[in-house]
Amino acid sequence: MLHINSESIEKMESRYQANLFNTISGFKSANLIGTRDKSGNTNLAIFNSVVHIGANPPYLGFILRPTTVERHTYQNIKETGFYTINHVHERFIEKAHQTSAKYAKNVSEFKACGFEEEYLNKFTAPFVKESKIKIGLQFEEEHLVKANDTLLIVGKVLNAYLDDKLISADGTISLTEAGTVAISGLYEYLKPLKLNKFEYAKP
Amino acid sequence: MLHINSESIEKMESRYQANLFNTISGFKSANLIGTRDKSGNTNLAIFNSVVHIGANPPYLGFILRPTTVERHTYQNIKETGFYTINHVHERFIEKAHQTSAKYAKNVSEFKACGFEEEYLNKFTAPFVKESKIKIGLQFEEEHLVKANDTLLIVGKVLNAYLDDKLISADGTISLTEAGTVAISGLYEYLKPLKLNKFEYAKP
Repeated sequence: MLHINSESIEKMESRYQANLFNTISGFKSANLIGTRDKSGNTNLAIFNSVVHIGANPPYLGFILRPTTVERHTYQNIKETGFYTINHVHERFIEKAHQTSAKYAKNVSEFKACGFEEEYLNKFTAPFVKESKIKIGLQFEEEHLVKANDTLLIVGKVLNAYLDDKLISADGTISLTEAGTVAISGLYEYLKPLKLNKFEYAKP
Repeated sequence: MLHINSESIEKMESRYQANLFNTISGFKSANLIGTRDKSGNTNLAIFNSVVHIGANPPYLGFILRPTTVERHTYQNIKETGFYTINHVHERFIEKAHQTSAKYAKNVSEFKACGFEEEYLNKFTAPFVKESKIKIGLQFEEEHLVKANDTLLIVGKVLNAYLDDKLISADGTISLTEAGTVAISGLYEYLKPLKLNKFEYAKP
C-alpha cells in the first residue's frame, strides 16, 4: 500500500496532483448550472460539486473556484440572485463536458455547446431543455474558504421540474431511470447501477 | 412534466420531502469518517457529502448536520483536530450503511458494525482497515450555513493510503477498480460504470 504524505505531495507534478486529489473524494454529481446576466447574456457551466445542504426547507450548495471559467456563473448569480441546476444525462455527457472550456464572457455555452435555453413560469434564469431534472434556485448565502479562496454557494430551491414517473411513492427520485450520470475527477463520466437500497438504520 | 414550487413543497409530507430533496442533487460520494476522542473512544459514521475543495494544497470538505448522530464526529474533530475519510466499497455497503444508526456516544461503530480500526504512522485518528482508499486529515476551518445551521467542515489532507496499482500515470485514481460506490439519497448504493473519459475542454 502506497503512503502519500506531505513530503511526497510537495514533490508531485502539478497535473498529477490535480488528478489525484480530484479523484480521491469519491464519485461526484454532474450538473449544469445555468445563469443570465442583467443584459440577458446566458452562461452554462458544468459543476461536479453540487451538494445537499437541507431538505426542509430545501437548500443545495456548490463549490466555486473564483479564478476560473466558472466566475461568469458567480457574477451572474450575484448580479441577479437566481440560477438553475440541471442534471447531466448519459445522452449528452460530451456536450456537457464541453461547457467546461473557457469561453469568453460574451459567448453563451448554451449555443456554443448545443443546448437549448428554456424559460419556465417567469423564472429569469435559463433551464436546460435537454435535462430531465431541473431546479430553479435563489442565492441564499456564500462562504469563503480561507484555505484556498474557494467559495461555498448556498441556494434555496424555489422550483423543480421533472417527469412524475421518476418519483416513487416515498418521494425518492430514480436517478438511474432518469439516466443521470456521475463524475470521477475532472474528465470521467459514469453510469451508476443500483446495488442495494437499505432502510433507515437502527442500532 | 411535474412542476414543484413553493406551495407544493409546503404541502409535502415530511419523509416524502426528505427523500425528494436528498435525491435531487445527483449522485453522491460514499465515505466513512473515522474519529477518536481524547479518552480514546472511537467513532465511525457514513457521509454522502464529501466534496473536493482543492488539490494544491489538497483540501476536502463535508457537510455536517449539528443535531444528528454525526455530532460525535464533530465533537471528536474539534477535540483532537484529526479525522480520517475512508472510501466505501461494494463489499461492505450494508455494514457501512449501518454506521448511520444512532449509537450512543460510548459505543464505537467500528465494533458495532464490524469494521477494524487501523492506526498508521502515528496518525491519531482511526483508519478503516477494510477500505482500499484512506485519507488522514487535519481540521482547517468550519463555516456555519445560516439558512439551516448545517456546517461545512474543511480539512487538509496530510496522508493518503492506497494500492499504487489504482493510480494511473496521470495521477487519476480508478474508483471503479477500487470498487468504490456512489450513493443516491440516504439509502441507495450504486456501482458506477465508466461511460467515457474526455480531455481538458477547449473552446
